[in-house]
Amino acid sequence: MGSSPWTLDKSLLFLGTFVHSKTREELEFLHDAAVAVDKQGQIVGVKAGCGSVTAAKEQLLEALGLREEDVEVCSCGEGQFFFPGFIDTHVHAPQYPNVGIFGKSTLLDWLQKYTFPLEASLKDLDKARRVYAACVRRTLAHGTTTAAYFATIDVAATNLLADLCLALGQRALIGRVCMDAPGINPDYYRDESAEASLRATRETVEHVRRVDDGRGIVSPILTPRFAPSCSSELMTGLASMQRELDLPVQTHISELADDVKLATSLFPLAGSYAKIYDDHGLLTPRTILAHAVRLTDGEATLLAARQAKVAHCPCSNGCLTSGKARVRWLWDCGIDVGLGTDMSGGFSPSVLDAARQAALASRFVAMDLVGDACERSKLTVEEVLYLATVGGAHVVGLGGGLGRFEVGMQWDAQLIGLNVVPRNDGLDDGDKASLTRDAGNVDLFGWETWEDIMAKWLYNGDDRNTKRVWVRGRLVHSRP
Amino acid sequence: MGSSPWTLDKSLLFLGTFVHSKTREELEFLHDAAVAVDKQGQIVGVKAGCGSVTAAKEQLLEALGLREEDVEVCSCGEGQFFFPGFIDTHVHAPQYPNVGIFGKSTLLDWLQKYTFPLEASLKDLDKARRVYAACVRRTLAHGTTTAAYFATIDVAATNLLADLCLALGQRALIGRVCMDAPGINPDYYRDESAEASLRATRETVEHVRRVDDGRGIVSPILTPRFAPSCSSELMTGLASMQRELDLPVQTHISELADDVKLATSLFPLAGSYAKIYDDHGLLTPRTILAHAVRLTDGEATLLAARQAKVAHCPCSNGCLTSGKARVRWLWDCGIDVGLGTDMSGGFSPSVLDAARQAALASRFVAMDLVGDACERSKLTVEEVLYLATVGGAHVVGLGGGLGRFEVGMQWDAQLIGLNVVPRNDGLDDGDKASLTRDAGNVDLFGWETWEDIMAKWLYNGDDRNTKRVWVRGRLVHSRP
Repeated sequence: MGSSPWTLDKSLLFLGTFVHSKTREELEFLHDAAVAVDKQGQIVGVKAGCGSVTAAKEQLLEALGLREEDVEVCSCGEGQFFFPGFIDTHVHAPQYPNVGIFGKSTLLDWLQKYTFPLEASLKDLDKARRVYAACVRRTLAHGTTTAAYFATIDVAATNLLADLCLALGQRALIGRVCMDAPGINPDYYRDESAEASLRATRETVEHVRRVDDGRGIVSPILTPRFAPSCSSELMTGLASMQRELDLPVQTHISELADDVKLATSLFPLAGSYAKIYDDHGLLTPRTILAHAVRLTDGEATLLAARQAKVAHCPCSNGCLTSGKARVRWLWDCGIDVGLGTDMSGGFSPSVLDAARQAALASRFVAMDLVGDACERSKLTVEEVLYLATVGGAHVVGLGGGLGRFEVGMQWDAQLIGLNVVPRNDGLDDGDKASLTRDAGNVDLFGWETWEDIMAKWLYNGDDRNTKRVWVRGRLVHSRP
Repeated sequence: MGSSPWTLDKSLLFLGTFVHSKTREELEFLHDAAVAVDKQGQIVGVKAGCGSVTAAKEQLLEALGLREEDVEVCSCGEGQFFFPGFIDTHVHAPQYPNVGIFGKSTLLDWLQKYTFPLEASLKDLDKARRVYAACVRRTLAHGTTTAAYFATIDVAATNLLADLCLALGQRALIGRVCMDAPGINPDYYRDESAEASLRATRETVEHVRRVDDGRGIVSPILTPRFAPSCSSELMTGLASMQRELDLPVQTHISELADDVKLATSLFPLAGSYAKIYDDHGLLTPRTILAHAVRLTDGEATLLAARQAKVAHCPCSNGCLTSGKARVRWLWDCGIDVGLGTDMSGGFSPSVLDAARQAALASRFVAMDLVGDACERSKLTVEEVLYLATVGGAHVVGLGGGLGRFEVGMQWDAQLIGLNVVPRNDGLDDGDKASLTRDAGNVDLFGWETWEDIMAKWLYNGDDRNTKRVWVRGRLVHSRP
């Protein structure tokens, strides 16, 4: 790997304020701190609490036996801090052009009317390249350093998505969508048979592993679309492939009432949506289940027992009127939860926006409750930022390597910068300039606490505040 | 008014695509159209359907007896269209620095913890100037051409807000907040007496009318904070001033359960929140009532009979866990509804975001219903854009002059520009540039219908898409 573009020319040294989740309920602020990253993109040293950033830098360099000329230094400016990269645990890359287009529909007609025709059309590789490049660039610009992608049924287009993620530098799980059942899947867009689906899937798994070449940037994920779109034979075959090739799995579960009804009527012996997957061997510690809006207590207990994970997609659940997922309850049941943009069920490419909407959605859950239960169901700023980073890392199976600024973790990170409102009367031209340059919507007046600053970023931040993005130490996005 | 900065040097001629609400349910698209605006900022001609924009221009100039050199021309580019300016029917300017900061609180402790201390501190006019200028600039940049502002109890700071709106060019209703009741209002921040409150209010009314000088840009509005914060004497006095000086009124109503309980316990004879205002003569056709989350059927009938208006504030209702306002039901009751950002109960300065959240909030209302009632309660793209423009114009009493591109209406408008994804493979540097320049998050691929384009703008648009903003024909904001 010496000549790989994923090996850096120099080690990196980051200086300033670092913010990450200490626990689910608490953010940790490392001020005047230094973080060192080796040429493989791994964090090798963290130093804080030395009284000044210069002291932190000097002590860290000394501890690591490095000289200043051995490292490339990157420092925070005023109103800036480092934050872990976001993890999008559920997103459909081919649907990117449809973001915002869902009309008044709910899941099942939305699939037929908007989704399947667009996905099918991406067998045109020129179109796929244009759509996928736009999607990957856009999500990187929003600080998404890792994404779990559903592609389409097409092998060549799915392989192309992996190639593009690698070229553009986004860590990604790449899933060729498996869907062989007639009925819900239209004739113009489905796998010919379970066997054909499994064969095509194996091709993409091999391609993704080959192009990644051990770098850990792109990796394959088995992707049965959702139970109603798959035959028993296909699901059993995927479970067997999962064990044989040691792969993660992603699918949908219990999105809205009609969806639950459809799934349980197609698999009447299972008795519940979760049990369908479990009966086919697909509920594993490496399984990501999107939505989980309407799980029963019994299903939640089953998911927890299997250590399966949930991708919470608040934007999509709102747009498609799917229902109110109960994150606090999922946590209480012992289930790991991350956030998904679920484009284009959800309209936003931003995991920060998903975090914001998770906070709002939890308040709609709270409105149905009273007293302590009402208060408890509201998610805090700290909790939704945990979902966006550490929570997501656990969901995609990278909890040991992503989500915090800690020795041994990867430098998948973003530099956040907020606007500082000038101290003059606000009527001169210099002040006006801050609205037209790329400063974003978060206005700091200077009297805010760090807790306030994080809340202001969560609620009004956007991609303009994401000044730089790194994956495995490699700078993959920057703006002036 | 000949030397007034509000008289333009030249008439204006706008060319391209114009989009506005034809009805509440339908947008009208005027393509290859021309709109002429006189030096007073009023629309004097609209021409469409001539086969080309050149023909529209020529026919309109001829009809108006104008030569091309008499007018300043402004044309749409690719991916651009003109849209009416947004109307924010409920916003607290002094709370602007607190956007996003509401923790886990609900209305009544949020007022004590976050809101009253900040509002009180703005008697420092340097601080007020900095905060108000940032708020007005920021909302203008988001296309808000008219705002109904709550200021503070301070006369000088309230007058300053009017001066700033006039200087920066935003049409605004300026309200000095009236709150004289001990108890809910803290001792450090309340009017000394009903008499003092009325006297101070009259001072601001006179100041705002004097500085506006007949231009119709800033105007006064009577602003009892909400029933629990006002004495009967104060409300009666304000109603009398309303009739004497022919003024609009704004206040809050029925925001959340505790708020309703408090109000009806303080005015036990009224029997309902709406009846409190009605008993004091404050329910008029010019009254704007923010929230209206928990109105009873009887209260809605009373509001409709009095022709009082509602400012729907979905963002705030979510953040403060206030409840789910039923816009479809308010419409069915015959009540006019507009949108309010309600900063800082709501976190977003953007009426476009309020429209987006109105669509989402209506889906949370729908989740509690079944069948047709569920379907009906969902608001469409067209309906929430109506709320943001024509709906808002009716709420602030300017329905005859704002909200559509029609002869006799004011040119309060915005030029919207969306990003067009290049047709190449998306991997060259020119393509990457669109992410770092000010192009925003709406990606058009070229195959979208105009209905799709409006949906994409609604759901992913932001201030970067608002390229220019005019109020009464005057260009008050622009970005490259």
